[in-house]
Amino acid sequence: MPGLLGEKSSVAVIIAVGSELLTPDKIDTNSLFLTEELNSLGFRVTHKIVVGDDALDLESAFRYSCGLAPLVLVTGGLGPTEDDLTRDVIASVLGRPLEIDKIILEDIRTRFAERDLRMPEINRRQAEVPRGAEILKNQHGTAPGLILKENNVTTVLLPGPPRELRPIFTHYVAPRLKTISLGKRVYRRVLRTTGETESFVDECVKPICQRWLNRSIPIRTTILASLGQIDLHLSTVSAGQLKAKAMLDEATCELREKLGILVFSEDGRSLPEVVGGLLLEHEATVSVAESCTGGLIVSRLTDYSGASAYVSGGITTYSNEAKVKLLDVSGGLLERYGAVSEEVAIAMALGVQKNLETQFGVSATGIAGPTGAVSGKPVGTVYVALVDSNGDIMSRRCQLPGDRSRVKFQTSQVVLNLLRKKLLSI
Amino acid sequence: MPGLLGEKSSVAVIIAVGSELLTPDKIDTNSLFLTEELNSLGFRVTHKIVVGDDALDLESAFRYSCGLAPLVLVTGGLGPTEDDLTRDVIASVLGRPLEIDKIILEDIRTRFAERDLRMPEINRRQAEVPRGAEILKNQHGTAPGLILKENNVTTVLLPGPPRELRPIFTHYVAPRLKTISLGKRVYRRVLRTTGETESFVDECVKPICQRWLNRSIPIRTTILASLGQIDLHLSTVSAGQLKAKAMLDEATCELREKLGILVFSEDGRSLPEVVGGLLLEHEATVSVAESCTGGLIVSRLTDYSGASAYVSGGITTYSNEAKVKLLDVSGGLLERYGAVSEEVAIAMALGVQKNLETQFGVSATGIAGPTGAVSGKPVGTVYVALVDSNGDIMSRRCQLPGDRSRVKFQTSQVVLNLLRKKLLSI
Repeated sequence: MPGLLGEKSSVAVIIAVGSELLTPDKIDTNSLFLTEELNSLGFRVTHKIVVGDDALDLESAFRYSCGLAPLVLVTGGLGPTEDDLTRDVIASVLGRPLEIDKIILEDIRTRFAERDLRMPEINRRQAEVPRGAEILKNQHGTAPGLILKENNVTTVLLPGPPRELRPIFTHYVAPRLKTISLGKRVYRRVLRTTGETESFVDECVKPICQRWLNRSIPIRTTILASLGQIDLHLSTVSAGQLKAKAMLDEATCELREKLGILVFSEDGRSLPEVVGGLLLEHEATVSVAESCTGGLIVSRLTDYSGASAYVSGGITTYSNEAKVKLLDVSGGLLERYGAVSEEVAIAMALGVQKNLETQFGVSATGIAGPTGAVSGKPVGTVYVALVDSNGDIMSRRCQLPGDRSRVKFQTSQVVLNLLRKKLLSI
Repeated sequence: MPGLLGEKSSVAVIIAVGSELLTPDKIDTNSLFLTEELNSLGFRVTHKIVVGDDALDLESAFRYSCGLAPLVLVTGGLGPTEDDLTRDVIASVLGRPLEIDKIILEDIRTRFAERDLRMPEINRRQAEVPRGAEILKNQHGTAPGLILKENNVTTVLLPGPPRELRPIFTHYVAPRLKTISLGKRVYRRVLRTTGETESFVDECVKPICQRWLNRSIPIRTTILASLGQIDLHLSTVSAGQLKAKAMLDEATCELREKLGILVFSEDGRSLPEVVGGLLLEHEATVSVAESCTGGLIVSRLTDYSGASAYVSGGITTYSNEAKVKLLDVSGGLLERYGAVSEEVAIAMALGVQKNLETQFGVSATGIAGPTGAVSGKPVGTVYVALVDSNGDIMSRRCQLPGDRSRVKFQTSQVVLNLLRKKLLSI
């Protein structure tokens, strides 16, 4: 499938250089910043490549990238040590001799002098510039950025430390890229859903998305499944912001109609944030009684500023004694139905709603695993309940897949979604 | 630089497939796990490449990778939707027709049936296998892993979700790679610390680590800072497991002596897991009273199986009324000192310890931000307390940096560390 931007002249490749990025401990995060900036300038990133501090590997990666895109960004490897090979390799591939730039050399000397230090001899290397390169001043470090143009490929070299890379990109690279981009930009929209599987959502939206792809200005849809949540990422390329917005608005509308209540967010907000917004809107308060989720539901609800307006608190009861004492669950109920039951879930919700004097009380009790399964109630069996101050009671049994932490998180999604649907219905 | 393993080691390339990995929001983290596993099997990763869900881009990246290394791992793109192209592209490059595997198809049907669902027709694609591929069973999802051998290149296809990829790699791929690796392996050890800054830990250990680097068989140390935690990663390369283990044992010992109580884990366990182990050892129980952390502390403590033996429960009180009603904090105390104070922190810990009848009660109250700051108590001001059934009381004021979620998490680290130190002292 051709990319959204289509034309080859608006794609870019990012190469991150550094042996530390090939260990189990470090990851290239500069590319996230660069991707966002490039997208907003109208460039689509088609490949990201990580190579170590190895001249042959970098040479091969750079040659490969020049065949892929007219814009290649290389980050890292501009330091003063022998490990730092980016300048040498790129100059050699492009057939440009390295020359000492007197202004850069003076800048580096000054940076050291300002800290009462003499410039170590090895830092001279950072003043070496491939002939004809444009020099991008680095206010936060010794290695300048460089731009080289050759055979219709623009190569941008940037230092690896984010606090050096970011200002150089913003101040010097972005304005120059504007002049070579096609004026088209990527516009995005994210719809978040919960309550159904990836395949279900995919089957629902596929005919619509297929139709969008075939339009003269296509909209591309990516489905992203995470725990208890399926997101739809829409993107389109346009030269006009208003037109793009109108297209994405219309597309969002169509998906919302198709998926209905499954869609909980069209603006990037998370489920607890959306639920918080609805509680605020209704000037309602909630309290949470938790067993298997161990405090996760109330913790997620309080992740957002202003939560104190609608969350009174929560009671996590792991033991039966605590359920009796703090949530007024009757000992007889626990004995007859067991702690993991619909009856106890409802009693917990009633108890917390009464004790914390809130409009809504929600609860979860279940078997998060890996132990605790009993006959008829395997690991992943969860009961959730919601009660309100009018005496309405809702409850649900779920069978959730995965390990302990996945069961915990999915349960929190189910409870928050139950509350969301209740709030939407009043 | 040839990297830790040296020139002669076996090399591998990792390709991560997925358009979402080329957006500003998502990053390929599977490669960290795979790199660690590959290193420990004697393979050095020389390139990591990310491509989108685009057949031509993947084809080109795969052809390029086959020229770089005798082992190519491709992650992602094995899902059921049209976006998932990995199977098709790799089969086509290797000239192998795709054939439906009846056993996989039956497995997928069963997975859906177990959850009372009908298999959507699109999932049939996941049973398509390039002719001659070895099939690696996926216990946690519908897409199996695949191994293909062709022209001295071994290609391993793995599903993108980490919880599917990891067990497949561990159970099926690792044993097969052992037979083609060259013998030398990277051995690692991770020490986790909490309670001090990265620069403090760095200054402490630098002379020791420098000495290790200059030994005939060097040990390399990487310092990795995360929220409320500084980890030290030691690694060494050796052909002999016993020798490597002895070296790392000795190094760990030296670091432990230098860093003392700061080190909470030498075996990969997290802080709540370590605290849970200590509580079990002492046959002690804990309860948690939370305000600014909103249930995060009790949720983290209950993330581990068996937590019900030592966690009785927790009470999250966001409002003053809830603090009075559920934690017996006196209204006068709240009025005189404010909810964010040492006095209230101690009263909360005493209240939860008494109400849940546990040996220890811990608490946190603070200003997580971004709003709520008052004179003398800026955002990030947090009071924590610990009480025990003997009447011992400890408390602490902290000033924590960062946004709301960072303050919440760091507070949970402080409270768990307070409890750890208390348990170590008895």
